[in-house]
Amino acid sequence: MSPSGSNGLSRRFVLGALAGLPALPGLFSATSPAEAQTATPLASWNDGPAKQAILDFIRATTDASSKSFVPPEERIATFDQDGTLWVEHPIYTQVVYCLDRVPAVVKEKPALAHVEPFKTVLTGDFEKIGKLSLHDFEAIAVATLTGMSVDDFAAEAKAWIDSAKDHRWKRLYTELTYQPMQEALSFFRANGYKTYIVTGGGQDFVRVYSERVYGVPPEQVVGSAVGTKYGYDKNGKPMLTKERKLLLNDDNAGKPEGIHLEIGRRPHAAFGNSTGDRQMLEYAKAGDGARLSMLVLHDDAKREYAYGPAQGLPDTKVGTFTQALYDEAKKDGWFVISMKDDWKRIFAFE
Amino acid sequence: MSPSGSNGLSRRFVLGALAGLPALPGLFSATSPAEAQTATPLASWNDGPAKQAILDFIRATTDASSKSFVPPEERIATFDQDGTLWVEHPIYTQVVYCLDRVPAVVKEKPALAHVEPFKTVLTGDFEKIGKLSLHDFEAIAVATLTGMSVDDFAAEAKAWIDSAKDHRWKRLYTELTYQPMQEALSFFRANGYKTYIVTGGGQDFVRVYSERVYGVPPEQVVGSAVGTKYGYDKNGKPMLTKERKLLLNDDNAGKPEGIHLEIGRRPHAAFGNSTGDRQMLEYAKAGDGARLSMLVLHDDAKREYAYGPAQGLPDTKVGTFTQALYDEAKKDGWFVISMKDDWKRIFAFE
Repeated sequence: MSPSGSNGLSRRFVLGALAGLPALPGLFSATSPAEAQTATPLASWNDGPAKQAILDFIRATTDASSKSFVPPEERIATFDQDGTLWVEHPIYTQVVYCLDRVPAVVKEKPALAHVEPFKTVLTGDFEKIGKLSLHDFEAIAVATLTGMSVDDFAAEAKAWIDSAKDHRWKRLYTELTYQPMQEALSFFRANGYKTYIVTGGGQDFVRVYSERVYGVPPEQVVGSAVGTKYGYDKNGKPMLTKERKLLLNDDNAGKPEGIHLEIGRRPHAAFGNSTGDRQMLEYAKAGDGARLSMLVLHDDAKREYAYGPAQGLPDTKVGTFTQALYDEAKKDGWFVISMKDDWKRIFAFE
Repeated sequence: MSPSGSNGLSRRFVLGALAGLPALPGLFSATSPAEAQTATPLASWNDGPAKQAILDFIRATTDASSKSFVPPEERIATFDQDGTLWVEHPIYTQVVYCLDRVPAVVKEKPALAHVEPFKTVLTGDFEKIGKLSLHDFEAIAVATLTGMSVDDFAAEAKAWIDSAKDHRWKRLYTELTYQPMQEALSFFRANGYKTYIVTGGGQDFVRVYSERVYGVPPEQVVGSAVGTKYGYDKNGKPMLTKERKLLLNDDNAGKPEGIHLEIGRRPHAAFGNSTGDRQMLEYAKAGDGARLSMLVLHDDAKREYAYGPAQGLPDTKVGTFTQALYDEAKKDGWFVISMKDDWKRIFAFE
């Protein structure tokens, strides 16, 4: 663990101990029954319909006398990452990673310095970079996320995530997780649920830090994935190389498809925050018995950000929360979590 | 659980209790520390290098004072299914399933009755069926494994596996698991390992019975997989349909690739029995620290089957164990398990 990572955890440890949180993500692989019984669950949540919905769902599915009781081995809960577990605005963290990797890629292939979009990225001019096309960003993703061994990629991503800081809070990205959602993850686990991250981001990227940051082991991260190719390095040692071929686009319909591919069970609870999570939440809610689908609404401009058409605000194209999504949530019995009203605090460092 | 399934488990329960086995696959999702301490591990294994290799590996990776100690969350062991955990000879169980499904498929699409290869399959003449081409079998697989919802497929496969019996022992296929390997699965789990099945067979098929039969939950089954497509049934209920597109061919190089896709960690131990497992065993063995790669050799013509070029026997094209594989095993420090010499008994019903 890097010094910066340790600091992040130490800070959270102190705050977590003060708040009597049910589990400290990343330090323990499981929560003991004693912790589950003595802790105050969801301490950073205000009382209200969102908190109550979680408490009711857990009671309904874990009380052996409940008609909605779910056997422990079937308890699966899935969580989107960007905008649901940590900050996604104004730009997805993994996109920052890709941009930050460009100089290293150009160092290996100097000719790229004179080729777009790499030339623009190297200027460091955020205004110009923001105007690059989707096609340009795809070229950047291919150059920075494919072609290397899976081990080299993991080492590069780990070094970055252990040191890179965001521009607003000047903190490690891994500190920008939502404390109430960390408590939700812990509360689900304390009640026998396997918690999965189901992300539109790259699963190889998220798996690098998921265990330390969320207490979610790499094998419980489902995300967008390129294919890999088995081969041997120059010493004859087996290796897997990240290919250019997209195997799973784990967004929108790709989320339930990815869940079926990598989990094979329909989740009983699912959390998201944007139209990219719609199908996952529909899929979870359509199962038998008690089901919980929840959407995080970014409506706290002061403590975090407020964005999305459902609030009459501009569509930032990052974590779009449309009126249609809001309407579907209300119609289908999903719960909308107001960051402003439902969360007592947003970050552990507050 | 079906009556036949219960019978199978009851029989195993009695035998298991008599033998003091560490865990009863399928009835408990985890083994308690007490069980792990009091049980005699690997009771159906004869003393010898294979059994010793497992005992040594577990000690080296779970003893906190060992230099090869592996933290609990990193303990992953992968097991091929056909020929490693249960009988694969003379024909893979899932192929029997596909053939058995043909009449139901033809009932839905009567025109197929007059089209090859379905016409031949409907004759029930095993000699003729055995002469069908690989292309014919692919057509049968497409007709019986794709086009339906994932829920319909699971229901069909479950009904079949709960009642279909093999031709030699006249027993449910799920009774034809190898008792020593069941004990190996339990022993690994009792020592904190997550056990995964990594099969060339269809993961949707194996997931139907993996928990009950092996104590391996569906989310810990990696196998060949077609893509699914998210959509809605006529009542607007979300559904996933099995598509004709092969997403993961989980055999040969596809095994480490599938492991990376669905697990994201390199296994510390891997078990197989054929050239289709070669890359998985290489991949496991190439990691740092203590690693265990083992191959089951089918050399017991009396109690099970003997086949494969490494023994100077014909290549049956099912679970091929070549001389080259044997040589690689010896060279790279893998262990070969002789069913004849290393296993005291092969099936729980013996």
